[in-house]
Amino acid sequence: MPITGHNLIAGQFSHDGTITFRSIDPRRRAPGDTVFYEATPEEIDRAVRAAADAFAETRNYPARRLADLLDRVAAEIEALGDELLETADRETALGLPRLAGERARTTSQLRAFAALLREGSYVEAIIDTALPNRQPTPRPDIRRMLFPIGPVTVFAASNFPLAFSVAGGDTASAFAAGCPVILKAHPSHPATSELTAQAVNRAVEAQGFPAGFFSLVQGASVEVGQALVRHPAIEAVAFTGSLRGGRALFDAAAARARPIPVYAEMGSVNPVFFLPGAIRDGGAALAEGLVASVTLGAGQFCTNPGLLFVPDTAEGRAFVGMVCERMAAREPGVLLNAQIERGLAGAVAETLSHPGVECLIGGEIVPGGGYCFANTVLQTTAAAFIADPALQSEHFGPVTLVVLCADEGEMLAAAGALHGHLTASIHAAPDEWGVAATLADRVRDKVGRIVWNGFPTGVEVVYAMQHGGPYPATTAPATTSVGMTAIRRFLRPVAFQNVPDALLPPALQNANPLGIWRIVNGQWTRAGVE
Amino acid sequence: MPITGHNLIAGQFSHDGTITFRSIDPRRRAPGDTVFYEATPEEIDRAVRAAADAFAETRNYPARRLADLLDRVAAEIEALGDELLETADRETALGLPRLAGERARTTSQLRAFAALLREGSYVEAIIDTALPNRQPTPRPDIRRMLFPIGPVTVFAASNFPLAFSVAGGDTASAFAAGCPVILKAHPSHPATSELTAQAVNRAVEAQGFPAGFFSLVQGASVEVGQALVRHPAIEAVAFTGSLRGGRALFDAAAARARPIPVYAEMGSVNPVFFLPGAIRDGGAALAEGLVASVTLGAGQFCTNPGLLFVPDTAEGRAFVGMVCERMAAREPGVLLNAQIERGLAGAVAETLSHPGVECLIGGEIVPGGGYCFANTVLQTTAAAFIADPALQSEHFGPVTLVVLCADEGEMLAAAGALHGHLTASIHAAPDEWGVAATLADRVRDKVGRIVWNGFPTGVEVVYAMQHGGPYPATTAPATTSVGMTAIRRFLRPVAFQNVPDALLPPALQNANPLGIWRIVNGQWTRAGVE
Repeated sequence: MPITGHNLIAGQFSHDGTITFRSIDPRRRAPGDTVFYEATPEEIDRAVRAAADAFAETRNYPARRLADLLDRVAAEIEALGDELLETADRETALGLPRLAGERARTTSQLRAFAALLREGSYVEAIIDTALPNRQPTPRPDIRRMLFPIGPVTVFAASNFPLAFSVAGGDTASAFAAGCPVILKAHPSHPATSELTAQAVNRAVEAQGFPAGFFSLVQGASVEVGQALVRHPAIEAVAFTGSLRGGRALFDAAAARARPIPVYAEMGSVNPVFFLPGAIRDGGAALAEGLVASVTLGAGQFCTNPGLLFVPDTAEGRAFVGMVCERMAAREPGVLLNAQIERGLAGAVAETLSHPGVECLIGGEIVPGGGYCFANTVLQTTAAAFIADPALQSEHFGPVTLVVLCADEGEMLAAAGALHGHLTASIHAAPDEWGVAATLADRVRDKVGRIVWNGFPTGVEVVYAMQHGGPYPATTAPATTSVGMTAIRRFLRPVAFQNVPDALLPPALQNANPLGIWRIVNGQWTRAGVE
Repeated sequence: MPITGHNLIAGQFSHDGTITFRSIDPRRRAPGDTVFYEATPEEIDRAVRAAADAFAETRNYPARRLADLLDRVAAEIEALGDELLETADRETALGLPRLAGERARTTSQLRAFAALLREGSYVEAIIDTALPNRQPTPRPDIRRMLFPIGPVTVFAASNFPLAFSVAGGDTASAFAAGCPVILKAHPSHPATSELTAQAVNRAVEAQGFPAGFFSLVQGASVEVGQALVRHPAIEAVAFTGSLRGGRALFDAAAARARPIPVYAEMGSVNPVFFLPGAIRDGGAALAEGLVASVTLGAGQFCTNPGLLFVPDTAEGRAFVGMVCERMAAREPGVLLNAQIERGLAGAVAETLSHPGVECLIGGEIVPGGGYCFANTVLQTTAAAFIADPALQSEHFGPVTLVVLCADEGEMLAAAGALHGHLTASIHAAPDEWGVAATLADRVRDKVGRIVWNGFPTGVEVVYAMQHGGPYPATTAPATTSVGMTAIRRFLRPVAFQNVPDALLPPALQNANPLGIWRIVNGQWTRAGVE
């Protein structure tokens, strides 16, 4: 099916509006052929109402039915074949190998959520049976589990056109919870979004779900997102993007008559600490690994290592020299869009305007064909870093800031000055575990993930993954947007008091017909209740 | 130790301010002898800084050490003896039997959290081991668990001077998480609060915790609470009280440079549905049970049944008649304070000003000795109720609103028109399970707890309890303020990637030295990792 440029409202193409835009090929700075129609307020309202109607049905679907949908979405995405990758590459310039990997991640996370649903304990069933003889009053029977919250708005990310977009992690976890999704496409890759949305729609239809379970709305202006967040029937918002964008949605949601949660994953500069022994042992290979992480996807990763704490020693400076050499030797990647190029140039200029910050290499837009910024290494001192919280601002692109630390004490003090980030990484030799453990302990309150002798890019989709962190990394540090526990964002507990067994949901019935792990009278068990 | 009227900042009495107030004996509308000093901004800052310093230590305390503190707090409260109950009774007029029960609840929930800590699985340890041979890249080892978030501000409730106040459920769950607490006492019972705070302090000292782990601040004006919520070192807020109060804190927290969560449990009118067969079978006993629940504690319960859906039949109206008779026959209780009396009179007058609402009995302040409002039954029709969301506003006191429903269809429509509440109760005869199940399904999205053939007052402190619900019942419907999962509000996940076993927290180490339930590679187990 060709790309129409229309919105997809509850299974129907729709282009009622007059505001249009095109995607831009970032390699040529040239607009594509297809005209995309921004959703009107009426189309948005139609999508949300259809989602609410769909939810009236899907809220009671058994987990296996949701699992089947997720598997089908994965299969439909695979059935799109090379067209999906080629379309995404035209719109993002991320390259076919990366996009093939991203597609594999997208389908595998859909299937991982399907497996989670079939295992079943994600509903967190807890049962406390009655104590009819308790004095002075009998204790009633109380049973509790999680249920879906209702229609969710997901904002696609610019930098992951597949894995954090139309059928990405947020959509997968909302669908897994049983929640309909209204997907706000990113204007950087509207054709990729429409293609994927068509695949999602085919899965929704094939599995007999109501059409309103999924809608795609296009838009390049702020109003589309604001209208979604303000709609009274929306129950939660998931977002991956900039601090400014995420905070605007958070503020709009908090100002509603009925506030709703915003799960925004925003800026992070992902500090990396290098202890002296790690630099001594790691040498060129360590520099190579670091540069590969900093320049991955032209640095357009939430987990890009943007802050390097390095000992201010001859070896430390030599290490920084190796990093600079390798950064300079790499062809800088093509950036996703004009805003990112402009924003990156502005952020780097702003950082360089601070006292005590110098530019070791790069620092400017690379003129020529595509959107491009030079691979850049900035440098400052721990004292300057600690004194100036603005030096923790994100540079979204192939840019990293070296912070030279006179000694361990300065490195620990710098760690203590960090605000919230998604990750922190520590490189230490075996004889440095003592100070490394102190460092790890100090950063634990600042991040969602601590990486040992490695780099933060590459976020595994596993049960244990925590992709989150204190503000400004996210607006909801107790949740994650990657990994199996991401489903909890879209679930809410309800308790049942003295409800007859036959009227309870299967997960709470005495016989445990689903065979799931539950907490019964304080004990984990898969056994039924006597 | 006598009541000083001072704040208790990190174990030290402090009364730097000039704003003072006294508690009022609600039975006599007369101020007590003790002058209480409202905390100054500097005292508040001192309390929060001391809490942050304390957290630097307590954040790594093992669970058993936190459990020992909770047990000790319970013992110290019991050691206060009758003085605590008598003081609370003077300040609240709730009566000694009720207060003795509330004390038992308070100590038992402290001990229940201690048991939760000793069992240990509340840290939600999840482990995904490495796959070194995975293609194209090896999968790292990822392990994740929950950690305490830091200093928490707890606002004590007017209506539970023990169980939702200084050492109540919020404090117990924050302490259990390992988080220091700055307790904002309620101005209705400052002496009770100080007594309890002294007991908490003795426990903190006896168990060797840093003194900043707990502080009590007194205050009757809004500024004290606002200063706490705005303090940069506060990580979360727990509140039980009015919609207006809770929303003001929520708005202040959302407007911070770094927003923090507000767990506010606010207004609820707790709809109760009576199907015809239940009225037929239940008769006078049912009316008696209902009236006992409506008038419990002078109706000053978050779970007070304030909305009764009754069939508009001869039997239904006879039932309402029995309820009115019994309400009129009961001596109305003494209200907690002047604001509650004034607020209740205003709320009832406001409701009566709506078209289609009549007053069956009561409806006015009872003149005489104490703060007192007549036991009140209002009545309206389902049509009026559905048309007017304001009829779901809380009347905090011994007041309930009967909604006469022409038939099942109207009752279901009224259920669909509900906004968020803490609970919904359904009374049905065995031959009415079909429609009752439909009703239960419809209210599931509106409440945190569904009660079958019972009344919502009496919130059991068990693992499965959910005391929460969609806004405006709470600002955080995915959490609970009663029951063991209340601890999650004060915990946050952190993942560890490839961290050596010896440097991992015990809960995540291969050998599982704590012997806790964990999810390892997707399977629940207490076994160690090979």
